[in-house]
Amino acid sequence: MDQITCAQTKAISDRLVFDGDLNDKGTLFGGKTLSILDENAGLAAFKYVNVKFATANYDHTNFWQPLTTKDYLRVISYVSGAKNRAIEVFTKIIATDMKTKESAVAFTSFSTLITLRQFGQVDFPQLVPETPEEKFICSGWEKRVDLRKQDYLEQKKLLANLSNN
Amino acid sequence: MDQITCAQTKAISDRLVFDGDLNDKGTLFGGKTLSILDENAGLAAFKYVNVKFATANYDHTNFWQPLTTKDYLRVISYVSGAKNRAIEVFTKIIATDMKTKESAVAFTSFSTLITLRQFGQVDFPQLVPETPEEKFICSGWEKRVDLRKQDYLEQKKLLANLSNN
Amino acid sequence: MDQITCAQTKAISDRLVFDGDLNDKGTLFGGKTLSILDENAGLAAFKYVNVKFATANYDHTNFWQPLTTKDYLRVISYVSGAKNRAIEVFTKIIATDMKTKESAVAFTSFSTLITLRQFGQVDFPQLVPETPEEKFICSGWEKRVDLRKQDYLEQKKLLANLSNN
Amino acid sequence: MDQITCAQTKAISDRLVFDGDLNDKGTLFGGKTLSILDENAGLAAFKYVNVKFATANYDHTNFWQPLTTKDYLRVISYVSGAKNRAIEVFTKIIATDMKTKESAVAFTSFSTLITLRQFGQVDFPQLVPETPEEKFICSGWEKRVDLRKQDYLEQKKLLANLSNN
Amino acid sequence: MDQITCAQTKAISDRLVFDGDLNDKGTLFGGKTLSILDENAGLAAFKYVNVKFATANYDHTNFWQPLTTKDYLRVISYVSGAKNRAIEVFTKIIATDMKTKESAVAFTSFSTLITLRQFGQVDFPQLVPETPEEKFICSGWEKRVDLRKQDYLEQKKLLANLSNN
Amino acid sequence: MDQITCAQTKAISDRLVFDGDLNDKGTLFGGKTLSILDENAGLAAFKYVNVKFATANYDHTNFWQPLTTKDYLRVISYVSGAKNRAIEVFTKIIATDMKTKESAVAFTSFSTLITLRQFGQVDFPQLVPETPEEKFICSGWEKRVDLRKQDYLEQKKLLANLSNN
Repeated sequence: MDQITCAQTKAISDRLVFDGDLNDKGTLFGGKTLSILDENAGLAAFKYVNVKFATANYDHTNFWQPLTTKDYLRVISYVSGAKNRAIEVFTKIIATDMKTKESAVAFTSFSTLITLRQFGQVDFPQLVPETPEEKFICSGWEKRVDLRKQDYLEQKKLLANLSNN
Repeated sequence: MDQITCAQTKAISDRLVFDGDLNDKGTLFGGKTLSILDENAGLAAFKYVNVKFATANYDHTNFWQPLTTKDYLRVISYVSGAKNRAIEVFTKIIATDMKTKESAVAFTSFSTLITLRQFGQVDFPQLVPETPEEKFICSGWEKRVDLRKQDYLEQKKLLANLSNN
Repeated sequence: MDQITCAQTKAISDRLVFDGDLNDKGTLFGGKTLSILDENAGLAAFKYVNVKFATANYDHTNFWQPLTTKDYLRVISYVSGAKNRAIEVFTKIIATDMKTKESAVAFTSFSTLITLRQFGQVDFPQLVPETPEEKFICSGWEKRVDLRKQDYLEQKKLLANLSNN
Repeated sequence: MDQITCAQTKAISDRLVFDGDLNDKGTLFGGKTLSILDENAGLAAFKYVNVKFATANYDHTNFWQPLTTKDYLRVISYVSGAKNRAIEVFTKIIATDMKTKESAVAFTSFSTLITLRQFGQVDFPQLVPETPEEKFICSGWEKRVDLRKQDYLEQKKLLANLSNN
Repeated sequence: MDQITCAQTKAISDRLVFDGDLNDKGTLFGGKTLSILDENAGLAAFKYVNVKFATANYDHTNFWQPLTTKDYLRVISYVSGAKNRAIEVFTKIIATDMKTKESAVAFTSFSTLITLRQFGQVDFPQLVPETPEEKFICSGWEKRVDLRKQDYLEQKKLLANLSNN
Repeated sequence: MDQITCAQTKAISDRLVFDGDLNDKGTLFGGKTLSILDENAGLAAFKYVNVKFATANYDHTNFWQPLTTKDYLRVISYVSGAKNRAIEVFTKIIATDMKTKESAVAFTSFSTLITLRQFGQVDFPQLVPETPEEKFICSGWEKRVDLRKQDYLEQKKLLANLSNN
């Protein structure tokens, strides 16, 4: 079985915040943040294994602090667990104040991507976390998978109660 | 205390799926979906109470089926609970096959928006669900708030383990 | 002959006005309005009959009042008449002041979409207006078709007088 | 009274048609066309007189032939009449087949822009058409103004019959 | 051998500068300028010869003055030399102050486009400059080709010293 | 005098190539590449020194190989020299084939950004290259500055020969 480190799946995207992307509070429009998240998380999954994916869900998605034009952003995504057809990607956005150079984690999210059925049973490489952060994040994977399973069943029930209009 | 029905907070957005919005699997780019979600959920919150908000988190965000150019979409958001400074908005996307006219819920999500501190203690109107769906969704609000609180504490712990690079 | 109500063809799109979409007068950029119009009107036509269309013309297109970031918009389109290969779609944009909750019609337009020749003679369902507004709008259809025919002949003459540079 | 030729108000925009701008029929998305129209027509008005405008209406807006990636486009707008606070701009799109170099007028439209009240009574320069096309277009101005007045009254009646939802 | 004038290859694009396109200095975002440049230069090459191209390089690309919302822009590109598979396109952006009507060249660039190999040896038409500007620009072509060749060799060396991360 | 390493100024942006960004040759639209370049290069300059800049020029800008949807891209920019008010940023785009994992440098460019006059004489930190690549790139800086000065004078002459239309 092949091995791959979390670092080898890492996708990084440094971004400026443009005036045109601000909402009425002078902070980065949430939709823009989510759109960058989706591209970067997808890229991490592609680095892990070269098949096609569909995004299945996002959870634990928190905006910890607003993002303004005084910051630059580093969006970092890496694979944090994988089994069967499901790959979990962790994403964090680090905001750095351009003046003070102080950095803080401003946003975190976990995405689950599912390999398309047409690719059959894909052999996932074994994921190797190296840094303390990676070890911490990967160590929580099984618990998150369990929570996700429970939530999935809960949401399935919810789905049965929704009208089509 | 003022009353407002879920229906009065409802934001609706019908959309076509354009070729330019497709990813490499011929389905709607997730980032585009999340971007529409964010605008529509924000609009529902504005209809509920006219102050400024910051998005605090997204959870229970599931893509139930892919969205293709054969579908048109109806994105529906409405407020499903509110307390203190936090407003919860439920969003669903209904996909309708243009040919067969069959509809299905393709995406669901709950967002939490927080009123900005500068607005102080906002008097939220009392939310009145009317349809069976609205009653079901609103009835789950307290449980979701509890889960969110637990998850928030869990994620705060996670935050403490993240590096700034 | 099948029947379809105006309501069944209705496409709705609620929108916020973002700072990035404003022109130098602080009002929504006209091109953005027209772009939303085109998507929403096309969607109404798709709901009426599932074939491909080309937009043939826009007329009676009026901006009744400016659209600003203080408003949210509801764009409503529905089919208002159809014959041979031509479908007429009526679109209105309702602006609601977020503070006062006062609403007003800010924009109206009629579009004509033509079914592509390759689909041959399409059997249009019989259109049934239900509300007073729908009845009023549909009752003016034949007169608008006549005006359009006259204008088409007039514009064809104009076309003959245009240079290709 | 100052004079200005139609040519001096002319705004020109050559464009390629990109795959990402195509609709499901392989032709240029109408909303994109209308968006280019709005920018180019506004620019012609700015060249005529340097105050701020609001677009009041579009009429005689016809798509004469589809625009595909085999064509390049030349969008031409110029002022075709002005009185009181209203400026009429004529726009045509010439499509040229890249292979055969054959050109044809593919789209025409008249826009009316109104100077903002804050600018009071603006002294419009006298418009001087020079080419046969410009003379023809400008000669039809008064008739179009009359038609527009009639249509305006007609549409005002329509407005009174619209509901706000 | 066919002849073609520089004027016959000319691509023109008049543009307004929108607030949404400004950077933090209140001037047009450089990426937006470069994006317009790329489309307009490509169009000039298409007018010269109808095959497919890849952009090979940009050089002598200077921003002579900032572009603000007080200006309107005219982007002009035309072919300024061609040999073997390489076509050189010159682009200038003229900024005109809307108030004073004063114009100045704000940006200049030379692009080199290469015809795709699959088109084999394309017979380029003989390029005929007519105005003093065109004659000046075309007269410098051979010298620029020589500089480009030197720079290409220099950059190739540089390439050999680059790591892949 | 403060010191800063090239690595500390490094801006990284990993990107997928979307179908909607492709030109008619199935490769990434040049304007999109240049737009990413401009954002990433600007970010490297901001990391070097926190004042406002205007882009002055791009040179040595080469597309070494086409970018397709089979690749993912890593855009890397870092400061490669600075004096007076001018900062030079080097940018390279590494394309990695998703299947073979083979990487190659696909694009290189040097940008010069000028600090705005209002910031007066900015104290630039001393730039310290560490890797062989950084040392090679930085060692060529003075020669590039000289070439740029020559080219600037050459282009100034060219400017004097340009008409404003």
